[in-house]
Amino acid sequence: MTTQSTPPAEVDVAALPLETKAELFAGKNFWATVDVPDAGIESVQVADGPHGLRKATGDELGLNEAAPATCFPPAVAVGNSWSTDAARQVGAAIAVEARALGVDIVLGPGVNIKRTPLCGRNFEYYSEDPLLAGTLGAAHVEAQQGGGVGASVKHFAANNQETERMRVDAQIDERTLREIYLPAFERVVRENRAATVMASYNKINGTHATENPWLLTEVLREQWGFDGLVMSDWGAVEDPVASVAAGLDLQMPGPASASASAIVDAVRSGDLAEADLDRAVASVLALRRWSAGRGGDFDVDAHHAIAREVAASCAVLLKNDGDVLPLRPETSVAVIGEFARTPRFQGGGSSRVNPTRVEGAWETIRSRVGDGAVFAAGFTLDGSGDAESLRSEAVAAARNAVVAVVFAGLADDDESEGFDRDRLSLPEDQVELIRAVAAAAPRTVVVLSHGGVVTLEGWHDDVDAVLDGFLLGQAGGAALVDLIYGASNPSGRLSETIPTSLESTSAYLNFPGDHREVRYGEGVFVGYRAYQTVGTLVRYPFGHGLSYTTFGTTDLAAEATGPVSARVTATVTNTGTREGRQVVQLYVGAPAGPVHRPRRELRAFTSVTLAPGQSEQVSFELDSRAFAYWDVDDAQWVVPAGRYRIEIGDNARDIVAAAEVELDGNEPVRALTRKSSIDEWLDHPVIGGDLLAEELAKLLPEKEAAMMRANPAVLRLMGSMPADKALTMFGADDAVPALDELAARTR
Amino acid sequence: MTTQSTPPAEVDVAALPLETKAELFAGKNFWATVDVPDAGIESVQVADGPHGLRKATGDELGLNEAAPATCFPPAVAVGNSWSTDAARQVGAAIAVEARALGVDIVLGPGVNIKRTPLCGRNFEYYSEDPLLAGTLGAAHVEAQQGGGVGASVKHFAANNQETERMRVDAQIDERTLREIYLPAFERVVRENRAATVMASYNKINGTHATENPWLLTEVLREQWGFDGLVMSDWGAVEDPVASVAAGLDLQMPGPASASASAIVDAVRSGDLAEADLDRAVASVLALRRWSAGRGGDFDVDAHHAIAREVAASCAVLLKNDGDVLPLRPETSVAVIGEFARTPRFQGGGSSRVNPTRVEGAWETIRSRVGDGAVFAAGFTLDGSGDAESLRSEAVAAARNAVVAVVFAGLADDDESEGFDRDRLSLPEDQVELIRAVAAAAPRTVVVLSHGGVVTLEGWHDDVDAVLDGFLLGQAGGAALVDLIYGASNPSGRLSETIPTSLESTSAYLNFPGDHREVRYGEGVFVGYRAYQTVGTLVRYPFGHGLSYTTFGTTDLAAEATGPVSARVTATVTNTGTREGRQVVQLYVGAPAGPVHRPRRELRAFTSVTLAPGQSEQVSFELDSRAFAYWDVDDAQWVVPAGRYRIEIGDNARDIVAAAEVELDGNEPVRALTRKSSIDEWLDHPVIGGDLLAEELAKLLPEKEAAMMRANPAVLRLMGSMPADKALTMFGADDAVPALDELAARTR
Repeated sequence: MTTQSTPPAEVDVAALPLETKAELFAGKNFWATVDVPDAGIESVQVADGPHGLRKATGDELGLNEAAPATCFPPAVAVGNSWSTDAARQVGAAIAVEARALGVDIVLGPGVNIKRTPLCGRNFEYYSEDPLLAGTLGAAHVEAQQGGGVGASVKHFAANNQETERMRVDAQIDERTLREIYLPAFERVVRENRAATVMASYNKINGTHATENPWLLTEVLREQWGFDGLVMSDWGAVEDPVASVAAGLDLQMPGPASASASAIVDAVRSGDLAEADLDRAVASVLALRRWSAGRGGDFDVDAHHAIAREVAASCAVLLKNDGDVLPLRPETSVAVIGEFARTPRFQGGGSSRVNPTRVEGAWETIRSRVGDGAVFAAGFTLDGSGDAESLRSEAVAAARNAVVAVVFAGLADDDESEGFDRDRLSLPEDQVELIRAVAAAAPRTVVVLSHGGVVTLEGWHDDVDAVLDGFLLGQAGGAALVDLIYGASNPSGRLSETIPTSLESTSAYLNFPGDHREVRYGEGVFVGYRAYQTVGTLVRYPFGHGLSYTTFGTTDLAAEATGPVSARVTATVTNTGTREGRQVVQLYVGAPAGPVHRPRRELRAFTSVTLAPGQSEQVSFELDSRAFAYWDVDDAQWVVPAGRYRIEIGDNARDIVAAAEVELDGNEPVRALTRKSSIDEWLDHPVIGGDLLAEELAKLLPEKEAAMMRANPAVLRLMGSMPADKALTMFGADDAVPALDELAARTR
Repeated sequence: MTTQSTPPAEVDVAALPLETKAELFAGKNFWATVDVPDAGIESVQVADGPHGLRKATGDELGLNEAAPATCFPPAVAVGNSWSTDAARQVGAAIAVEARALGVDIVLGPGVNIKRTPLCGRNFEYYSEDPLLAGTLGAAHVEAQQGGGVGASVKHFAANNQETERMRVDAQIDERTLREIYLPAFERVVRENRAATVMASYNKINGTHATENPWLLTEVLREQWGFDGLVMSDWGAVEDPVASVAAGLDLQMPGPASASASAIVDAVRSGDLAEADLDRAVASVLALRRWSAGRGGDFDVDAHHAIAREVAASCAVLLKNDGDVLPLRPETSVAVIGEFARTPRFQGGGSSRVNPTRVEGAWETIRSRVGDGAVFAAGFTLDGSGDAESLRSEAVAAARNAVVAVVFAGLADDDESEGFDRDRLSLPEDQVELIRAVAAAAPRTVVVLSHGGVVTLEGWHDDVDAVLDGFLLGQAGGAALVDLIYGASNPSGRLSETIPTSLESTSAYLNFPGDHREVRYGEGVFVGYRAYQTVGTLVRYPFGHGLSYTTFGTTDLAAEATGPVSARVTATVTNTGTREGRQVVQLYVGAPAGPVHRPRRELRAFTSVTLAPGQSEQVSFELDSRAFAYWDVDDAQWVVPAGRYRIEIGDNARDIVAAAEVELDGNEPVRALTRKSSIDEWLDHPVIGGDLLAEELAKLLPEKEAAMMRANPAVLRLMGSMPADKALTMFGADDAVPALDELAARTR
């Protein structure tokens, strides 16, 4: 795609009346921008995404009625695929459907970080890791925009909870923002020139995202070079004038006559620069280029098949004791759990798609194995009915089968956009059911459907296998059956940690905040970055996932290719007996340095599909960002010199190969001043240690110098004291200018 | 004591020349205030404390030479006594010594909270719990000031680390300050009218403590009613003018001619109100009242005996498998470890006392049991010597004895004021020694000396008993022997948690901060407040400590005595065979409410000494602070209505009796506004739930109202949306005034 910032040539923004420009700042309705026929300005159509179209047909909000569209696997599943191909397939197919439905901009993908498993909207997000989220989001945007439909990367930024989402102030230090919460957005903006970015509801460090000039202008436009449109989340604008000034281009939804009046007044009074409004209007008009591709139709069956194929690459095989999976078709199986009959495949809220069709697991199994399978509901989705008799029926079925496959999970009411969960375990009736079935059946497999992570508490050790689908879209039931019977080989890897308990999660003590303030007290230590640094026990680590085959990693080599870059190669071999896809995960661990860093961080990954016995060399070029931290003093990425650990992991906990690379880094040598601390003086590469002690002795009165020689601990005691203050305390005020001369040697 | 705020009548502050007043703001030298003989103003003498006098006699700083004084158990030990009597004994004795040495103000006690076990100055502080720290600090101040010597409660405030202590900015939310870091100061100020408070080096939320008007004036003087003097920590003043304006009265040390000039200029230019300077000078002059008691002498032997008696009540018996302790005099014992011969009994830095005498454990044991004991050094304090042969010698001694008693710990170089530790374990050579001895000796007892907590990693399970002395002052060696042989019965309880590892400590991820900023990311969850809430495994919990006897708790009863107060009674019985002191610990757990609170918090404690078989009823009157959290919206302590758990614990983890008390609380009912969220509207006691849904339906356009009736999840989806915005989004702008009318019903 070419540039999106220039409006159609026929419209001269500056020539538009002020009132017209002010009206263009807000939507025409829920789903369109304002049209001004006399000026040749037409509406641009937007629709909710991100994993399928929700084109409203009934009430404006469209929560009750929407045009049928394919419900692809939501981001939670695509995150588990670790596959840019999967993300691209979804993005490309959505573009086709959007054009067919007359939609120009699809609101997605969501690349927010899963700070806590409780967040009600986690199913719309990819990962707890920014590299994984950014890479998959970028692939989705590239494919969707390549198909002629604009994306809206959301929710910018730090929209990591639903509780008080419209008023909460997310208090986050800048290093944490730069390293954790912004990089996924940065990647999509820098690499894919996303058509639009959606500013989120929440405040960041006291200022609403929609009114935040640091976020929308300094970081997004000036530092990242964003040239598209910034729209508000629906209802996120509080102060339209402040929003325009901060860098917001479009208030959604509309109409918003009060906003238009306020903007007109502010421009007239000089409180708002008209140039800012012109920027917003130009951005709105430039969106029109995305209308060019409207039309065509889409192949419902082909898209359903894509949804099924992608879903199969997303599910994660957590456990498979005794290779109970895959099942053979002739194995007698008891299919248990209402979710097998009534699949849970998407989340609640604005992303809800009216699917073209739904393929459940039970119908697929029955069509595959016929009478070799029986079904028992086991529980109801709303907790109604007689739990005891439902359970007894299921246990009876399990007892007569060779394998029981229990479809458990969370129901629609358990999680949704709009609120956060308050627990991580499965409903109690399902836990009891699984335990009872496992006690009765020779072998038990649990298949899970849910948006947010669930702990496997109370039953994990009782079952032989766990296949975790999360939410897999409308073909998820069929895809799960493909995996269960080995038509597909599981290759998903957890894009978020499964913890042992809610209390052990990294944000637990600071979530969801009090009094509309949420402190990101864990800083950069989010998810596995916390667990691996602290040594917290987890149920399954980030990156975990089994296959029906096995893989080995050999010949890991790492070499510096510059002061802040390195090349890493390794050989991956399929050491098992089936074709399979291995996700190669590269983590980097930094040496001790000026800031406290996670024990390891994911810095690259790729997939290789290998036949049994086949090997392939994988290669990674790591640039400075793989080694850098955000330095708040220098306001830049800094790579300290030192030895970095390069690790290939089966997951974030289990490292299978490790090497080291020595980098020169790019850390600036800071000049000393009289205010530098004694420690900084002592440690300085130019003037430190003995040289300093010698010079200090010259500057101090004899009695104090003698005391210091007699008691070297004094210098350590005073380590953090600014040097000038130390001299003053020892009665050497006169020596402070000499200190300046010493400091000059360090410049 | 009567008021301290009025200067001696003969000096008229307002009549003093400006230059004189400015000079009075800083010290005359390291240890005295400025005297102005012509104006009848004499110097006031201060000296370092807090657990003994350090009256400099050589160099000014006095780190090399000081007058002999009794080194009492430092605060770390008194904290473990949980005994106000112990704190009082120390305070009273210090007052006597101060008068004898001509010191008017002793710089102590330190009541900072142990946020992390790494803090190099933890040995000067009482506890990780503010109630325990405040109660003991108050007892010390009461006794010392009752003896005619002023106290300086330090380091105000949030001075919880040595790393970058002069420049670090402690970023702490107000609730955490009010609930954790300020209450110990508050208690001493409110209850004991401390003569002085010492403002700390660090910044708090961007402003140096010495320049912080919120801290020094609004909180300290206006809210707590402090009427004494605020001095700076030594060298803590950056900007003297800002300091005077903020509420600082005395810059230490002096002279500081630059400060005086700056103050004179600022008053002349109008940048500083002369009234502020007058307040500072009046405070300095008022200190003179503490000079009245100078004189007398002190009984070195009697004070040593006090130090020994207090020390015995401070040591904590962590483990005593098979009742290996107390030893019988006739038992053959191998005394191992250099610390038995060269006792470590105090910390390094400004609190270092030149002791009147030192009584070590080995000399005490030898004099008690004669040839029944042998000694082997086992290791050297500085790691010199042949570790292998030292260890072999110790193992040989252990093999020939019935019990080996290993005196292990940290040496002076391992910890001090001025720097923080970076590990929690014992030195490796000592760990190896203990393991080797434990393998050779029939029974092994480990006795520990150290300032900051050490984990018992690598050897804990190998030994039979652990007696943890921390630092016990100059008579600590003798006191430990009293405990080992049963002349005293251990009664100390841990005033801080012993964690399993550094990584599992609550501040680990946020300590010591980066780039001179430290985020208190764990909030109020400090120490056991974190571990008990999260469920973190610890080695020994806060409050743990064994005795040679046993105790039982029965008949726990709790009743409300008002909307925010309760009375708790329980019966404590000595169920063992020796007289002993039980520390009764009362914890309170709050119901789920508007803020995230620790699972339990220490809210009262007392000691009872009981003969075998004896019972005593203890009674606690709990006021609102036992139930309240600091509400940042209301800027006050708030007790939510609900059922509170009342727990008596052997420690913070092991609860031995529990009850509940229902309180009406004092939570204000907040009026709704159009900006209140949908959730707040729904939950409001006056207009909520069905009533609101009904009213909203009237306000909405028919189509949207119907949608909402059909899909109740919508309301939940919009839970955090301000009500006026919700109406606007649904096209009901006109209804917003009606919302105001509804809101009016809640006022």
